[in-house]
Amino acid sequence: MLNPVSAMAVVNFTEWSRRREEAYRRFVEDIEIGYTDRDIVDFIRLVFSKRRVFTTSSCSGRITIVDTLYPWLRDEAYILFKKHSSIELSEIESIIIYRPIYRYWLIVNGPIIHFNLASLEDVQKLLTLLREAGFKHSGIISIGSSGIVVEAVSGVWTSFLIRDGDHIVVTNLQHIVDIANSILAEGKNRLERLFKAFKELEI
Amino acid sequence: MLNPVSAMAVVNFTEWSRRREEAYRRFVEDIEIGYTDRDIVDFIRLVFSKRRVFTTSSCSGRITIVDTLYPWLRDEAYILFKKHSSIELSEIESIIIYRPIYRYWLIVNGPIIHFNLASLEDVQKLLTLLREAGFKHSGIISIGSSGIVVEAVSGVWTSFLIRDGDHIVVTNLQHIVDIANSILAEGKNRLERLFKAFKELEI
Repeated sequence: MLNPVSAMAVVNFTEWSRRREEAYRRFVEDIEIGYTDRDIVDFIRLVFSKRRVFTTSSCSGRITIVDTLYPWLRDEAYILFKKHSSIELSEIESIIIYRPIYRYWLIVNGPIIHFNLASLEDVQKLLTLLREAGFKHSGIISIGSSGIVVEAVSGVWTSFLIRDGDHIVVTNLQHIVDIANSILAEGKNRLERLFKAFKELEI
Repeated sequence: MLNPVSAMAVVNFTEWSRRREEAYRRFVEDIEIGYTDRDIVDFIRLVFSKRRVFTTSSCSGRITIVDTLYPWLRDEAYILFKKHSSIELSEIESIIIYRPIYRYWLIVNGPIIHFNLASLEDVQKLLTLLREAGFKHSGIISIGSSGIVVEAVSGVWTSFLIRDGDHIVVTNLQHIVDIANSILAEGKNRLERLFKAFKELEI
């Protein structure tokens, strides 16, 4: 069905290889500095152990408190808290006690990984594997001479409106913290599944 | 940078054209039956006025009440309410008065459109247009002999946990209804922007 040779014509392999080296150097440097997102390190290492793929941007999942009108905004949004592991009530209580400029949202993100590949045949393999591992919202977000970028997203994402101006919106914050932690754990489980499946991937 | 001729080799144009005709027939039949999602009809008509693209699945944005443990689940999830336009407090109060099996989530989705195209060159044009029109999470979700499928997603998506078992989670439901309606409106605005931009697209 696919014609990998013709698809390869899109990507400049020399440019792609250079990008791969840059990404690997940055990864190694970040480890030396100290990765804040420790749960993703082994996965990135695994990705770089494969010859025909690399990753530029990866997150194992996180909980944030954002002051913004809507949770999808980036420009008029202030991230007041960010953690890649379970949170405790006391950690966020000390933040939301102050009045927000807009609204406080507690946002839980599952893992997000950007893969860069050189051939459409490998992309097909990866997309199939991603869907089987529970990353159902994955897709190709760009195709160019420097590579084909696949964004792996699991669909594990939830927002909770916590405070709007002076108005505290939720009745029981501990309850929200518990649910947020279980959502984060579900995201990490999917990353674990992906890790196991990715080991077997021949690319 | 791109080589559209070689990329075309992936798609079987005869098969693609047959799919396009089927999709158009289904659209016309659905209009006769009566589309529940009226805000998307003009946009689908516009898509079919272009020769080298069609759409199989489209939604202008909607508000749902879902009984489920987590908002991303599909199997153990019951959609108790669905509306493609603004909601009123009374419409949802009568639902959440009953105890959920899992949890009641009020979910607002922005527009989601699946485009099917025959060439990578056209896909590139469409992806550029989508990003400019505020559909920043768009990507290619499959490439096969029957076409290249692009999912257009705006990132306008928010969940509100309303009730967990016997426990009502929000303090002021009217407030949530107002925010949900404004999020729905933001999604519809993006669809309007996309409509205008799509008119000028030469594919």
